[in-house]
Amino acid sequence: MAGDTFGHTLQLTTFGESHGRALGAVLSGFPSGIAVDEYFIQGEMDRRSPGRDRFSTQRREPDRLQILSGVFEGVSTGTAIGMAIVNTDQRSRDYDEMKDVFRPSHADYAYWTRYGHVDHRGGGRSSGRETSMRVAGGAFAKLYLRQEGIQVHAGVRSIGTVTDGGAPFEPPFDNGIQAVDPAMVPLFEQEIDRARMEQDSVGGIIECQVTGVPCGLGEPVFDKLDAALAAAIMSIGACKGVEIGSGFEAASMRGSRYNDQMHIEAGRPVFESNRSGGIQGGISNGQPIVLRAAFKPTPSIGLEQHTVTRTMEDRTIRIGGRHDPCIVPRAVVVVEAMTALVIADSLLRARAYGI
Amino acid sequence: MAGDTFGHTLQLTTFGESHGRALGAVLSGFPSGIAVDEYFIQGEMDRRSPGRDRFSTQRREPDRLQILSGVFEGVSTGTAIGMAIVNTDQRSRDYDEMKDVFRPSHADYAYWTRYGHVDHRGGGRSSGRETSMRVAGGAFAKLYLRQEGIQVHAGVRSIGTVTDGGAPFEPPFDNGIQAVDPAMVPLFEQEIDRARMEQDSVGGIIECQVTGVPCGLGEPVFDKLDAALAAAIMSIGACKGVEIGSGFEAASMRGSRYNDQMHIEAGRPVFESNRSGGIQGGISNGQPIVLRAAFKPTPSIGLEQHTVTRTMEDRTIRIGGRHDPCIVPRAVVVVEAMTALVIADSLLRARAYGI
Amino acid sequence: MAGDTFGHTLQLTTFGESHGRALGAVLSGFPSGIAVDEYFIQGEMDRRSPGRDRFSTQRREPDRLQILSGVFEGVSTGTAIGMAIVNTDQRSRDYDEMKDVFRPSHADYAYWTRYGHVDHRGGGRSSGRETSMRVAGGAFAKLYLRQEGIQVHAGVRSIGTVTDGGAPFEPPFDNGIQAVDPAMVPLFEQEIDRARMEQDSVGGIIECQVTGVPCGLGEPVFDKLDAALAAAIMSIGACKGVEIGSGFEAASMRGSRYNDQMHIEAGRPVFESNRSGGIQGGISNGQPIVLRAAFKPTPSIGLEQHTVTRTMEDRTIRIGGRHDPCIVPRAVVVVEAMTALVIADSLLRARAYGI
Amino acid sequence: MAGDTFGHTLQLTTFGESHGRALGAVLSGFPSGIAVDEYFIQGEMDRRSPGRDRFSTQRREPDRLQILSGVFEGVSTGTAIGMAIVNTDQRSRDYDEMKDVFRPSHADYAYWTRYGHVDHRGGGRSSGRETSMRVAGGAFAKLYLRQEGIQVHAGVRSIGTVTDGGAPFEPPFDNGIQAVDPAMVPLFEQEIDRARMEQDSVGGIIECQVTGVPCGLGEPVFDKLDAALAAAIMSIGACKGVEIGSGFEAASMRGSRYNDQMHIEAGRPVFESNRSGGIQGGISNGQPIVLRAAFKPTPSIGLEQHTVTRTMEDRTIRIGGRHDPCIVPRAVVVVEAMTALVIADSLLRARAYGI
Repeated sequence: MAGDTFGHTLQLTTFGESHGRALGAVLSGFPSGIAVDEYFIQGEMDRRSPGRDRFSTQRREPDRLQILSGVFEGVSTGTAIGMAIVNTDQRSRDYDEMKDVFRPSHADYAYWTRYGHVDHRGGGRSSGRETSMRVAGGAFAKLYLRQEGIQVHAGVRSIGTVTDGGAPFEPPFDNGIQAVDPAMVPLFEQEIDRARMEQDSVGGIIECQVTGVPCGLGEPVFDKLDAALAAAIMSIGACKGVEIGSGFEAASMRGSRYNDQMHIEAGRPVFESNRSGGIQGGISNGQPIVLRAAFKPTPSIGLEQHTVTRTMEDRTIRIGGRHDPCIVPRAVVVVEAMTALVIADSLLRARAYGI
Repeated sequence: MAGDTFGHTLQLTTFGESHGRALGAVLSGFPSGIAVDEYFIQGEMDRRSPGRDRFSTQRREPDRLQILSGVFEGVSTGTAIGMAIVNTDQRSRDYDEMKDVFRPSHADYAYWTRYGHVDHRGGGRSSGRETSMRVAGGAFAKLYLRQEGIQVHAGVRSIGTVTDGGAPFEPPFDNGIQAVDPAMVPLFEQEIDRARMEQDSVGGIIECQVTGVPCGLGEPVFDKLDAALAAAIMSIGACKGVEIGSGFEAASMRGSRYNDQMHIEAGRPVFESNRSGGIQGGISNGQPIVLRAAFKPTPSIGLEQHTVTRTMEDRTIRIGGRHDPCIVPRAVVVVEAMTALVIADSLLRARAYGI
Repeated sequence: MAGDTFGHTLQLTTFGESHGRALGAVLSGFPSGIAVDEYFIQGEMDRRSPGRDRFSTQRREPDRLQILSGVFEGVSTGTAIGMAIVNTDQRSRDYDEMKDVFRPSHADYAYWTRYGHVDHRGGGRSSGRETSMRVAGGAFAKLYLRQEGIQVHAGVRSIGTVTDGGAPFEPPFDNGIQAVDPAMVPLFEQEIDRARMEQDSVGGIIECQVTGVPCGLGEPVFDKLDAALAAAIMSIGACKGVEIGSGFEAASMRGSRYNDQMHIEAGRPVFESNRSGGIQGGISNGQPIVLRAAFKPTPSIGLEQHTVTRTMEDRTIRIGGRHDPCIVPRAVVVVEAMTALVIADSLLRARAYGI
Repeated sequence: MAGDTFGHTLQLTTFGESHGRALGAVLSGFPSGIAVDEYFIQGEMDRRSPGRDRFSTQRREPDRLQILSGVFEGVSTGTAIGMAIVNTDQRSRDYDEMKDVFRPSHADYAYWTRYGHVDHRGGGRSSGRETSMRVAGGAFAKLYLRQEGIQVHAGVRSIGTVTDGGAPFEPPFDNGIQAVDPAMVPLFEQEIDRARMEQDSVGGIIECQVTGVPCGLGEPVFDKLDAALAAAIMSIGACKGVEIGSGFEAASMRGSRYNDQMHIEAGRPVFESNRSGGIQGGISNGQPIVLRAAFKPTPSIGLEQHTVTRTMEDRTIRIGGRHDPCIVPRAVVVVEAMTALVIADSLLRARAYGI
């Protein structure tokens, strides 16, 4: 009810602030008997960590995941999986000067009205560092999905005003910035560089596709598969938009162009297009699931901004230091993780009804 | 767990198929002591009903809502509110010819893989008629929100390829098609007329705004207010995209342009813009909440389409008869209803923690 | 969250007051393809109805269940099952004299503090009539369980101070009062008769057993199968105690006597006793599930009692008329229904994890 | 859904096995601004630890609780509270000889059928050590309740066949064994001593009372306050029965004796008895809440028992070593913790509706 738990049959509960003692999670409902590849899981953690590309913040955040329960002799036991990363650097000195100031378009003001305080040490619970536990949970979900023949991949479609031309989606995207189209990498880098040099920031768009999804996942009415995905993705800090299949473009299409027609090939139904993004009536139809998410620019910028203090005084602020001018490349694995958690949850949930 | 219930503290559970005996709902957690204006509620039902504008289907669907419990002498008792509409016309004759055919981009195929059957009588549980109970629940939510000084309004921003020029959002939009910009009404009508004449269909975009929302609604991490809204809106049948505030446009903006700066006026903080759409860090900040939803074109069209049968044979299909070429105007009240349910639920939920 | 919904994977949501227009329910998550025997379901409704034995109230309450959705051509569709009974007699005249008085050990006073009002018409939502929808939901659960080879039966073990001698549990108990031991029927009747003649009331104890339960149902830690059963049974109006297996007697037993030892017969493990009542560590072990529930005496009695009014004045009250001196025989089917709902829910829930 | 989370508005999620790396919990929905007295919390942990009385196991289990998040400068922040205890002794050597044997009336066999394996290292997730995190969560709940003027206390009413004579309930019970009646301490000790000398074990009964509870807590129908308490208490490992107020005794009482009559004193309603145990119609009525729980004897005994192995062979077993002949005194704080969690959850939940 307080929003720290995600999912129904596979449930991830997280805790932890950016500068507290530790961040951690409990993954409940993970099936027993799944081989737990800790090397893969740590690899996912590393994909989110800063310092992987030359654009991300230079803070040392070694997100070394410890698995504390639920895994015995390399295999999941079916009981709750506890995990944590210890914060080695709990210094919050860098933030002390901003202690009384609401940073523009951060969560500071809203949290202050909600809780009567703000943990000024780097955003506390609203920090992007919270997503580390989503990635940990998502890594477990991927291990389960792989065994079921399901793959989840995401990549960057645009950075700032630079958008790719609709290149085919052929993962993995091992090109530093995780661009869907490797040819876009230098252009995306240039866009980020320019923003940084101007002490500004940029956002971008990530696309995620899931292949191997069986028909029949998702619940009708309120828990449609696309509704679950929309909530999952929109719950990632900086996300401001989600679309499925043709998405917003669908609004301007004629039915005759939008509809996914079918015919028979080798005795089986074949869709002639996938504008529905793999979901019809809220239920998966066996086609790849396709979604896109819009991320706003990083709110921390060096340019001067107007803001106010807790004591209701005007102030100007320049947020200096070691902030990413663009968090989009680091968000790719987070989008994958949330998508994987939804698909794994939906699969287990559908199993209850014999799917 | 099977997706027929929506919300946490205020919960709407619905049942009913388009051609069954009745559709109904249980609204649980509605506060006691609220005056229940049945005339207003029925008015909301009527806004969704077809035949209000000249574009919608001509079927007679008198959605006469009966309130069966939870209201005593015109006031809510605090216990479960039961409600239902009886289906006066349960004929399914019109659908018999399509009994064995999966209608393209309808839920037919996905449902068939899920449940081992399709209720061919007009879509069954996946029919748009399911939304009538969302509107009934949303009408109650609005009654509660009004008492708290909160208003929810939606209007049409685009139909097919015709988009308004960003007219100011000044509800109510009593112009038949519920366009935000009344000057767009003839152009929107033309777009729909053209689609109908060509036996085709069109989609569109609806914008919804909520005013009077207190600060502090929404839960951090997974149940952010924008995540809850995204799930709510995306769970409406034909919706394929949701965005908050600047939405997808935010992805191409610089932080310096996107960030909502603040200053003090009359001792209180004032935002200089609302690109966040009233939500920061997943929590309301007191500004109007702004969201937009993309609706795909109606899947039922008269043009010939390829499809397959349950016995895995190719077939062509023309879906004739009394179908809307555009459901967007009728979806306006559904968007409002789902938004109102989320805001009312979030408000009650926050009250638990003293907001 | 407001307590009108029961279950996780199979969910029953109910509405309705004793003297409102209708009582109803939504059963969500019921599997598709189950034959729905409406004659059996109505038979269950009738088992709860008064007037079946000569002790129950003589009010005419024809609980004729209407199934409104989710069943098509006699088979469940997998979507929400809506159902309702219409209240033919909504007269509340009989209750008007008690309008301002809190009836002792009824819910009146507690509800008044909670909701700021009391629906004086026979208890409103707290009336025993609320259990009719539990029976309807339980009847569906039984249909599903039967198909899985699981049987749920309950019977009366004691009425007032009269207790059976531990007769073997051999259902069905078609002896009017539904006594486990048919030899006890006249003694139980005598106990009830004596209470009625003295304008008083009595309670009793019901035992429920479930056979054919597979191993592995129930979730560890908080949602143990016995915890779910305890909540289900204790949520029935007049229930004040629940025990599993040896129950309270276990507290005075030595481990050497209590423990259920095992040995091998025909290659399979056989338990030498069932003091655990079929549940160990919160998970079913394949033995019959055994529970007992204590019901308090009916609070409505003709003898004079002290009470107070809403305006905080002393008053004496005699509750006359057509009240059962003992509701225990009518509660038998309610205990079965709640047990069946828990077992069906647990079974579907376990299926998600491959049980 | 997998049962690792407890509560609705205040939610406790736990993880950890008896011999894993750590046990931990996330407490979500704990209000902000509550002073967190870590000394009190550790004191509660110590009450559960063995070695406090001379009867409990002599293993060293220093349950040193670490608070990892959600508390800043000694005050709760309103966000998720993470906590953990590290297992200093992960030796499982002592259990290796029982690796393939199902210990009678332990969870071993049921878990094996559920998960396809048993963590033989002391019971794994089904170990009594799991309750340490309930105590940690309950300690936080008590801190919140105290601020609201609510006190939760439990004490021992019986051990084995030795029962107190209904002494008045006047906490605290600082007498080693936590007996309600201090005069019973030597008799209770004698009962436990005798069981140990005979290599056997005993159970007992714990009573819990809550004072200062406001009227109006609990939800009608399925989430009655007594139903929530029953589930909470029955979910504690060895509990086999729960009763509220007069409990099972109510079944044999006449209505005229059972009913809690009322009169006015100093303008306010006063109950003349509390046979309802503070709950009527599932909702608190302002009187002390009273419940009793039956605990079975410890299943681990030194006497020889029949059992079977995983390979379906007969075996006899003597469970030697450092096991408690009676866990009832250590369970007292667990009963308090679960009760406190339910009351705190119900209070926050009711606040949503303005109670």
